[in-house]
Amino acid sequence: MRATLIHGERDIRFEQVTDPILRGPTDAVVRVVASCVCGSDLWPYRGVRPTEEPHRIGHEFIGVVEEAGADVRTVAAGDFVIAPFAISDGTCRHCRHGITSACEHGGFWGEPDENGLPVDGGQGEWVRVPLADGTLVAAPSPDPAQIPALLTLTDVMGTGHHAAVCAKVGAGSTVAVIGDGAVGLCAMLAAQRLGAERIIAMSRRPDRQQLARAFGATDVVAERGADGVLAVTDLLGGIGADAALECVGTKESMRQAVDCTRPGGTVGYVGVPAGGPVLPIGYLFSKNIGVVGGVAPVRTYLPELLSDVLAGDLEPGRVFDLELPLDQVADAYAAMDERRAIKVLLRPAS
Amino acid sequence: MRATLIHGERDIRFEQVTDPILRGPTDAVVRVVASCVCGSDLWPYRGVRPTEEPHRIGHEFIGVVEEAGADVRTVAAGDFVIAPFAISDGTCRHCRHGITSACEHGGFWGEPDENGLPVDGGQGEWVRVPLADGTLVAAPSPDPAQIPALLTLTDVMGTGHHAAVCAKVGAGSTVAVIGDGAVGLCAMLAAQRLGAERIIAMSRRPDRQQLARAFGATDVVAERGADGVLAVTDLLGGIGADAALECVGTKESMRQAVDCTRPGGTVGYVGVPAGGPVLPIGYLFSKNIGVVGGVAPVRTYLPELLSDVLAGDLEPGRVFDLELPLDQVADAYAAMDERRAIKVLLRPAS
Repeated sequence: MRATLIHGERDIRFEQVTDPILRGPTDAVVRVVASCVCGSDLWPYRGVRPTEEPHRIGHEFIGVVEEAGADVRTVAAGDFVIAPFAISDGTCRHCRHGITSACEHGGFWGEPDENGLPVDGGQGEWVRVPLADGTLVAAPSPDPAQIPALLTLTDVMGTGHHAAVCAKVGAGSTVAVIGDGAVGLCAMLAAQRLGAERIIAMSRRPDRQQLARAFGATDVVAERGADGVLAVTDLLGGIGADAALECVGTKESMRQAVDCTRPGGTVGYVGVPAGGPVLPIGYLFSKNIGVVGGVAPVRTYLPELLSDVLAGDLEPGRVFDLELPLDQVADAYAAMDERRAIKVLLRPAS
Repeated sequence: MRATLIHGERDIRFEQVTDPILRGPTDAVVRVVASCVCGSDLWPYRGVRPTEEPHRIGHEFIGVVEEAGADVRTVAAGDFVIAPFAISDGTCRHCRHGITSACEHGGFWGEPDENGLPVDGGQGEWVRVPLADGTLVAAPSPDPAQIPALLTLTDVMGTGHHAAVCAKVGAGSTVAVIGDGAVGLCAMLAAQRLGAERIIAMSRRPDRQQLARAFGATDVVAERGADGVLAVTDLLGGIGADAALECVGTKESMRQAVDCTRPGGTVGYVGVPAGGPVLPIGYLFSKNIGVVGGVAPVRTYLPELLSDVLAGDLEPGRVFDLELPLDQVADAYAAMDERRAIKVLLRPAS
């Protein structure tokens, strides 16, 4: 089969690799129907995180089970499945608490599994899935129009939802969303779904502002820094928001989130910390602002969000504004890197 | 009247000062029945925070209203009252969210009020109380035996409760408490009251270990650092606690709290950050550990906790293990500084 490898900065190649096979009784092999590029894939692409040696990449895919190991119970050959961005057994102590992203036996696509065996990346034609029962979620064979929405459930929609859940967004909440990428946009949709009354999108790009409004933003603030904070508090009658959803991961965006939060409010953060955000503990203490978040346990949220997508009540698919054949994956990275696309959907040739 | 002033490092004096009078229609004047010394009073006492010039000190007192301003509605002359450690109006936007410690018009004992007028410290014979309706809580005239318990409601019991609430302690929770001072001990009591199943006290002093067990600790861990974390996780079947209650405020105690928390758990922190705790954001992110806390909104919790104290269901009074006349306040500081006492109750001569 063919799969995507990153060889170094701005060097993405779609290459011939070994076909995956079952390596154990809890494995499944999945034929990828759709995959995509994540904002976090851009860190190694841009060289911010160095690539020591070529390796598989991509952690978001949906597909069809081709073969399932003898011990796999919940999915079978022919099933349409959604794969969250983390592998999890669903039974360990952390999974039982719902934190599947910290599974004691889990791992991540493109990295060795707990037995040291290589796991395929998501931007390929096939993927060996370890711990298939814990990891995969079966869904009815979808209408082609549902593919984008279902694909968001592998990461960005669940991650945006996690930010909102961590920040205790609920009926009547006021919410500021920092970040207008796919995760930030999904966080707006999640906040709306959870009943937020005001959703302030912090975005300066007209196309994303428009999508933000379609995803539930009641207001848009284009300013950043102190001016952005002032604009948010002006909209909210002079105080910060109940919840700030940090969906970027830089020092500046975390500070923006903290400063947009009212005393007693919560920052829900899902942006992978890059550039070493330092939390201003003295300020957080004086204002009783909580900071809650992390690697989203997307698997835990999947059944609930899938149900809404299938019912047509949740439509996050519009975060994909470009679609390319999988063999043009390098172009997909370039389009996202150059901000020509919010998020690119990739389909293997059928 | 006489009141306590701090003049500098280890220099506490009980001196003649001006009698307080009503300065406005929302003021009350309270005759102090009991006061005490807080762990946070030891920071200036020890010179960790420098004292620029002599000033009033003390922020915990209960007493009887002597005179109330024309606009005061909820308390009247002769009422027994409890004064939380922060002044609050009860009506501003932050108070309406329950964060009375961030009141837009409030302040703290011994500091100027919002009009710039001096406010008395709590370790004195009388105190002018600004914003009396928002700040004070009336209680039935107490049995003398209830005085210590009622006095804890001004700060340490409400603060320990805040740590537990912030860390989402509830029925069945596993809890590690970092700090065996009065706040830490009250946090154990709060965790027990909220239904925690396991409460692990981290304490190395036998007298405090004993009180910890009386306050609901199911286990005691004397080790600190990595050994302490190992002992906690051993007790909990190999993972951290659902909740860690940080009741000290140092860099080491915050790290201890973070390391004792399981993925998806929460650190509830109420120790005033001293020595610049730096939160390990990358670790918190990878483990989904939330950090929530701050200056406790004791006023918000007071009615609920008072009700339990009056019913005899909550008995935090034992944190006071020494009682002195108010004019021996300097000895009280020394006793706490030298760890001869957990917390000292002070009574003005009647």
